[in-house]
Amino acid sequence: MTTTTAPEPPAIHDAIKSLAFLLGTWRGEGHGSYPTIADFHYGEEMAFRHNGKPFLAYSQRSWSLDDGRPLAAESGYWRPQPDGSIEVVMSHPTGIAEIYVGAVDGRKIELATDLIARTATAKEVTAIKRLYGMVAVELMYAIDMAAMGQSLQSHLAGTLQRVGD
Amino acid sequence: MTTTTAPEPPAIHDAIKSLAFLLGTWRGEGHGSYPTIADFHYGEEMAFRHNGKPFLAYSQRSWSLDDGRPLAAESGYWRPQPDGSIEVVMSHPTGIAEIYVGAVDGRKIELATDLIARTATAKEVTAIKRLYGMVAVELMYAIDMAAMGQSLQSHLAGTLQRVGD
Repeated sequence: MTTTTAPEPPAIHDAIKSLAFLLGTWRGEGHGSYPTIADFHYGEEMAFRHNGKPFLAYSQRSWSLDDGRPLAAESGYWRPQPDGSIEVVMSHPTGIAEIYVGAVDGRKIELATDLIARTATAKEVTAIKRLYGMVAVELMYAIDMAAMGQSLQSHLAGTLQRVGD
Repeated sequence: MTTTTAPEPPAIHDAIKSLAFLLGTWRGEGHGSYPTIADFHYGEEMAFRHNGKPFLAYSQRSWSLDDGRPLAAESGYWRPQPDGSIEVVMSHPTGIAEIYVGAVDGRKIELATDLIARTATAKEVTAIKRLYGMVAVELMYAIDMAAMGQSLQSHLAGTLQRVGD
């Protein structure tokens, strides 16, 4: 990580106040399963940042609990809208980019892919649904996926604790 | 920025050796123009990272040279292919996600959008071409864009110096 001489972030934009509970760095563990692969557990870090503008910058990475080797990663931007809906754009090192639409309901956020774009060498992922929610002081999520000819079904679930601003 | 207990990155994957010259953090300045907006100058930081897998994680942000307020940002992943081609996926806080295809030729990389996906509230961007190149020890780039009904034309150009690993 590098330091920077750019100014510190200003106050939170009104448009992201509904998502302020996500701000910070989160770390925890998750479990993955899918018909085409063996079940697996993983360590995970997630960060939501703001810079005074009406979106959150999001990044995530996961690693094997066995040997620490990197597993998945994703990064993008969360754009809450005045009507309680939310748009999310993100991309993955697997060659996939996604547009999600969803809804913010208190400390629960539901997202579903509106569009999945894939490079020529990417695997076939056709639909993803995500649920994020604060339960007491923990951030929990569940991700369903339709991919490789399989129907939409549970793929990933994790629980994270806030570890930093 | 946060520290992490995850292991240090391993050796560079063979697949990204052609892009190793990009690794690190870069900072510099650029100039923007487009028929629909006033010309502007900006400060910029760009980072290319690896974790031992066959892609680079990319992030960028820019700020006003007048008052330091944040301007653009983007993040994604660069995936060089064995035949010298490259796939790039990235997303933007403006609600846009892109799939680029291109070519790596020594220390020059040309990219063109294969697909631009937009959320409902995003502006109409229809095509982008990018050229990145090392000239002596500087990273230079030029970005052409077709957007808002305008033809593909110069939009951004910048020069950056490596400021960290």
